[in-house]
Amino acid sequence: MTSSGSRTATGPTPVLDLDTDVVTLTRQLCDIESVSRDEQRIADAVETALTALPHLSVTRLGHTVVARTELGRGERVVIAGHLDTVPVNGNFPSRMDEETGILHGLGTCDMKGGDAVILRLAATVPEPVRDVTYVLYEAEEIEEEFNGLKRVAEERPDLLEADFAILMEPSNAGVEAGCQGTLRVEVRTTGERAHSARSWKGVNAIHGAADVLARLNAYEARRPVIDGLEYHEGLNAVAIRGGVAGNVVPDECVVEVNYRFAPDVSTVEAEAFVRDFFEGYDVTLTDLGAAAMPGLDRPAAQQFLEAVGGRVAPKFGWTDVARFTALGVPAVNYGPGDPLFAHKADEHVPVAEIEHCERALRAWLTAGPAGPAERAGA
Amino acid sequence: MTSSGSRTATGPTPVLDLDTDVVTLTRQLCDIESVSRDEQRIADAVETALTALPHLSVTRLGHTVVARTELGRGERVVIAGHLDTVPVNGNFPSRMDEETGILHGLGTCDMKGGDAVILRLAATVPEPVRDVTYVLYEAEEIEEEFNGLKRVAEERPDLLEADFAILMEPSNAGVEAGCQGTLRVEVRTTGERAHSARSWKGVNAIHGAADVLARLNAYEARRPVIDGLEYHEGLNAVAIRGGVAGNVVPDECVVEVNYRFAPDVSTVEAEAFVRDFFEGYDVTLTDLGAAAMPGLDRPAAQQFLEAVGGRVAPKFGWTDVARFTALGVPAVNYGPGDPLFAHKADEHVPVAEIEHCERALRAWLTAGPAGPAERAGA
Repeated sequence: MTSSGSRTATGPTPVLDLDTDVVTLTRQLCDIESVSRDEQRIADAVETALTALPHLSVTRLGHTVVARTELGRGERVVIAGHLDTVPVNGNFPSRMDEETGILHGLGTCDMKGGDAVILRLAATVPEPVRDVTYVLYEAEEIEEEFNGLKRVAEERPDLLEADFAILMEPSNAGVEAGCQGTLRVEVRTTGERAHSARSWKGVNAIHGAADVLARLNAYEARRPVIDGLEYHEGLNAVAIRGGVAGNVVPDECVVEVNYRFAPDVSTVEAEAFVRDFFEGYDVTLTDLGAAAMPGLDRPAAQQFLEAVGGRVAPKFGWTDVARFTALGVPAVNYGPGDPLFAHKADEHVPVAEIEHCERALRAWLTAGPAGPAERAGA
Repeated sequence: MTSSGSRTATGPTPVLDLDTDVVTLTRQLCDIESVSRDEQRIADAVETALTALPHLSVTRLGHTVVARTELGRGERVVIAGHLDTVPVNGNFPSRMDEETGILHGLGTCDMKGGDAVILRLAATVPEPVRDVTYVLYEAEEIEEEFNGLKRVAEERPDLLEADFAILMEPSNAGVEAGCQGTLRVEVRTTGERAHSARSWKGVNAIHGAADVLARLNAYEARRPVIDGLEYHEGLNAVAIRGGVAGNVVPDECVVEVNYRFAPDVSTVEAEAFVRDFFEGYDVTLTDLGAAAMPGLDRPAAQQFLEAVGGRVAPKFGWTDVARFTALGVPAVNYGPGDPLFAHKADEHVPVAEIEHCERALRAWLTAGPAGPAERAGA
């Protein structure tokens, strides 16, 4: 096993019991500390557990583990989840509240519950009706350059070839389709410094930002309907800074603006929109993530929706589903937990949602292509 | 001698030669490093030199030295300068350009040239026609709490009693009368945080600052004429800050605003003006310095103006002259050097201006009250 990228891995590889119930397995995963860039131990445990299953072909890339069935089915689907968490925040290890059926702690919501579902399916559905590629990857919570799914897409795109993909990010155990894109720019006004006691000798760049903010106030959000889902764009100043000293007319003001754009807008169009919107100002692009079309018109997507049932909602936040879209694979977010509690000290998940997701996906992987089936866990 | 407040004073007390010419003395003063809070050595040198003069009564308070003639004249004037400088900026020690007659280096302009004039007058005019209080004080360039003139005004206001005061801050060897006041407020807008992917769930506090900046853009400066001098007010954002993270609609934005107000505006009126101007917003006062009336109608001021001649200009920046005004003493700024070069790496002073100020003040201190007199240095 590789040791590259590890920072604090110590002790023997933890043992995961894939034969236990999905909630117990969720807790086992939560209790292996795996803050981004410290995923070696959890990836080792996952790799060890999956390699022991003869019906899977396992590949490791960094601290990302890919396990595939090779049954020659007419269709292949990806089910993916990240192994890392945001930093510990007084919420490690996990704590089960038996009375409410809620599991508390770091990673419970984002997204060890989804990971446990993936591992349970991998272990207990040896002959799915559609070939499955299970992906458990590193470094989703930090800078994109470390993202394990990005690395697989770049170095081994063949491993991600599929007709449909499910990313098990928390979505209240409902289907959230596609995702909006995100773009950040710095809009800069300039002026001329002067002592504030003789301010008429200078040009105040902060005053110059009044019009930038006025334009933002006048913005009207697009709400396009795509595949029956209403998306909702947004254009917001997320930061502003300016100032030299308390007695100086400032010569620069920077407004950092975040544009969230619907899936029918390309990255090129998104950038053009923002540059046009702030015409006359110095606009610097600092971040750009493509949107993902919901792709609900594809047969694989339709069958998945029939199997899991429930309402489909648009995904407003950007997620790694966009990486699948970029590879031509329609993808949805579907996982246990309320995303509003992700990254919070009081992160938690109702265990019933974990169990629900496991049942629904098991039905989809074991039923014929015509409809859903509900079976007890193996 | 006291050692309190000293940080880096080392070695023996430097010796100042008050019998040399004013330019040489300026260099001696410049070459004693005396960044604010490190004034012990220069204060020791000044105290030693002045104590040796039998016609002066010397008092020390911290690193501030006050030397007074006690001739029982009908009139007393203060001539004051600060001993400290802003931090060294690759411009220490001083460097004389003989060809241009310009002295370069830290403190040359702000304000060791003025200090040298004070020391030369103190040493060489033993019987001035008006009693003189020479004040050489510490910590003008930093937080007000350390200001030596403030301390004397609070602890020994009797030492500053006078009919007129001259602060030798750089003013291009011309008279700058009074000074404008300065006030700072934080104008705060508030909103409600939300993920920027669902920005319509929040209220953007930075967008809310658009109106604050629009009001600043609509501001029209008062330019009142007082004692024949046209002042010029100003209302400027000197800083702006807001932002939580690149994906969060921010719930707070703070605009720091500096109001420079003419001498006919009291501090109470200045604060009321700003609060009214930003009505509807949360306004916090953070700094307030009173303006100083020019006071050119007083006889002592008139005689000074007649002696030194030249045009009188209004002082726009706030200076310690306001402390004299608060004590009921009319005061002007009058010193060698261009204030635009104060606090700059290329700080410098034309030595002719130092010599001019020395000659003019010597004339005023040695002539009768009726008019100017020009005499060679002692």
